Formats: sequence, C-alpha cells, structure tokens
Amino acid sequence: MPYELYYWPGIQGRGEFIRLALEEAGAEYRDVGREPGGVAALQEAMAGKRGGFGSFAPPMLKHGKFFIGQSANILFYLGGTENLAPKSEQSRLWTHQIQLTIADLVVEAHDIHHPLGADFYYEDQKPESLRRAEAFRTGRVPKFLAWFEGILADNPKGDGHLVGARLTYVDLSLFQAIEGLRYALPNLMRRVSKKYPRVMALRDAVAARPRVSAYLASPRRIAFNEHGIFRHYAELDE
Amino acid sequence: MPYELYYWPGIQGRGEFIRLALEEAGAEYRDVGREPGGVAALQEAMAGKRGGFGSFAPPMLKHGKFFIGQSANILFYLGGTENLAPKSEQSRLWTHQIQLTIADLVVEAHDIHHPLGADFYYEDQKPESLRRAEAFRTGRVPKFLAWFEGILADNPKGDGHLVGARLTYVDLSLFQAIEGLRYALPNLMRRVSKKYPRVMALRDAVAARPRVSAYLASPRRIAFNEHGIFRHYAELDE
Repeated sequence: MPYELYYWPGIQGRGEFIRLALEEAGAEYRDVGREPGGVAALQEAMAGKRGGFGSFAPPMLKHGKFFIGQSANILFYLGGTENLAPKSEQSRLWTHQIQLTIADLVVEAHDIHHPLGADFYYEDQKPESLRRAEAFRTGRVPKFLAWFEGILADNPKGDGHLVGARLTYVDLSLFQAIEGLRYALPNLMRRVSKKYPRVMALRDAVAARPRVSAYLASPRRIAFNEHGIFRHYAELDE
Repeated sequence: MPYELYYWPGIQGRGEFIRLALEEAGAEYRDVGREPGGVAALQEAMAGKRGGFGSFAPPMLKHGKFFIGQSANILFYLGGTENLAPKSEQSRLWTHQIQLTIADLVVEAHDIHHPLGADFYYEDQKPESLRRAEAFRTGRVPKFLAWFEGILADNPKGDGHLVGARLTYVDLSLFQAIEGLRYALPNLMRRVSKKYPRVMALRDAVAARPRVSAYLASPRRIAFNEHGIFRHYAELDE
C-alpha cells in the first residue's frame, strides 16, 4: 500500500526526515505537496479533510487508515511498517527518545535565524540572530554532537549505528541534521567535525547507502535553500 | 513497581506533565530530584549511570528495566502502563501527535522570555522578549488554542476529552499548558478564554478530578515561578 506524504513544496524542512526513511526503505510513496495542486491538497489534509485527523502543521503521512502528523510520530510508525526500528519496546522508546532530541536540535537550528519567531523576516531580526547563532555555535551544537557521539561510543552493538547493530530511522535523521548543519554553518562544522568522528563516520555511511545516494542524486532531493530550516547566512557562521 | 522521576527541583517545568499523569493514575513514585542529594542523582541519571541510557535533558522516568527520556515519550509509555491512553495503534498515535503539539507550544511559551536562548538572562534580552511575546500573544496562542478547540469540537465521542470518551494523558497536559498560560499571561487569557469554551471546560474538569485537585493542593505541587517555563513578566502581557 503506497504512502502519501503531505509537506510544503520547495523546501526539505521536516518533511525530509520522512522522505529519507521512505527512500531508504524503498517504499512507494507520493509526495503530494509537490504535485500539481499540492499546496491546496496539503491545506485540506491539515484541516482533516483528506481522512483522519487534522494536523497543526505538516508533515503528515497517510497510509491506509492511518493519517499521522508530527515528524517523530511518523517515524515511530514507519519504524514498524518499514522495519527501520528495533523490535523491543525498550529499544523502540530509546530510538524515539533520540529522534525527539534530534527534533529539539532542529528547532534550535531554525531559531538561529528566527529568534523572534516566524512572524518577522530574517532581515528584521539580524542583530538578534547574531547573538543567538553565537550561543548555538559555541554552546548548543557541541553539546548536541557530544551527546550523539557518546551514544555511538556506548552502543554495545558497535559504534556504527545509534541503536543496535543495524540501520534505524534515527541514523537517517542524524545524517540529515548533520547535512543541515554543514550547509548552514560550514565554517563551524569544519572546525569541530574531528571531535565527533563517530557521528561523521555515520553521516558518511548513510550517504553511501545505495538507496540514499541514489535519492540524493535525484531530482526528488530538494536542494538546501534560504526558505527552509537550515539556512546559510555567512554572518551567522563566523 | 514504583516509578522514579528525575527532574530539577524547584520548578514545575517539563517534569510537571509527568507528575500530573502519575498523580491522576494514583501511581506510587519517587520525585528523586527533590530528595536530599537529588540534583546529583539527576546528573548521574542523565549520564546513564543509574541504569538505562543517558538523556540529553530531564525529565527521565525509571520503571523496572525502562529508563525513558523526553516528556512526550515518557507519557506515551505511561499511557500504556497506567491506562491513560486509548488502546488502538491509530488512537495512540493520534494522542501522541497532540502531545507533541502541546510540547511545541511549551517551547514557544518558554521562548517568549528567552528568544536569544538560555545562555542569556531574561534581563539581557528584554527588548527581544517584548517583540517575541507580542507575536506569541497575537498569533501563536490563538492558533494553538483554536486547534485544541477544534479537536474537542470534532471528537466523535464528545467534546469533554481530546481523544475518545475518557481521560487520557493529553487532557492532563492541555490542562497544564492552560494553567501555565494563565499564570504567564493572565491579561491575554482573560481576554481570549471565551473563544475557546471547550478548552476551558476541559481545564476546569481536570482541575476538579479528585486526585488532581488533591495534588494541586498538596506540597507536591510546586508553585509557578520565574525560573520555569511559564513565567509572569507583566511587560510581556500587555
């Protein structure tokens, strides 16, 4: 049964975490927001007019009778249907905990260019962005990356994956978060990457997976740009 | 088997969402962070030295072999063990989606007094807080509250609960979010409450539940204060 993804066209955004899971799984899916009339369809889906419940914000995923919102929740579901998560309840919750922490990082990565909120353009909050970005670069990014590095180092099944001995959806999501940070803050990431060798090795291993690398080279992968979560503004990356 | 909650002493914070679920369930639990030596115990737990895995931030909940971080993840677990969630996978995911949306609101409620991040005191980001708070009051709060009101109105089992015909953990969490907003932004909430009658009726119904009302009147309920997520600064509530 094919999936239907509902997300904004034109940006990777939070939809990208779902796309990467679907692509790695080789799942059949429609990226409805990018089809003709996609934005109208997305708005209908958010209002609960395409089955299931409404959603405060995209992404949403439709699959049979399931209509799921919130990225981490969607991945929790796909972990089961696409075998991208461990089987035990304990490990599934641990995997979800890591995903929710990646989601927290993603919020903060967005806030560096929108500290006053999404109601103002970046150009109207540049001085504030400079202060917030500095705190993010010097405090938050190292703290998050050290946490992921520690999980890899402590994984009893080896440091090649965040959870267990094989790929799960959080490996894909960490890849995406690192890609985003490398796009947004290339100077920072060049400076600090060698402190987190396991994180960077996982990023490389995910990028080299046959389905992921085919996806990244395809037109289905939207390029990073200054409308999404991870934006490159040189002044925020001193 | 008793639970162990690990959270900062002195604030409600994200730990309060867990406390409310445990209290409503009548579950036996220790609030370890508030015991003598609690902060050291909390730090050990975050580092993974009290069993299970580490956590990027509190709260964490220990229960037998389970050691779970991230508030929404903990509530997902308690929904099962304490019968505070529906049974079907579809409804469990919908409940979790609502919880994750409440978590998004909580992040934004915090950001009104810390738009530049937690590395600066409120006093060092007051002009920025004024701008962010205005956008929160005029745009975000009404959008969130309208979404919850719509869920209640559309619930096929009646508008007394967010999901199904009986109390689930998201009803408790919405109560807490509303209480927090009423504390932080009393003028705003006085003005807008009548637009969201179902949300406010749910808040009242939760407050009147025997175990919840006993808890709220007990010393176990920490008072709101200006160290937590929901803070009252009169200038942010014009």
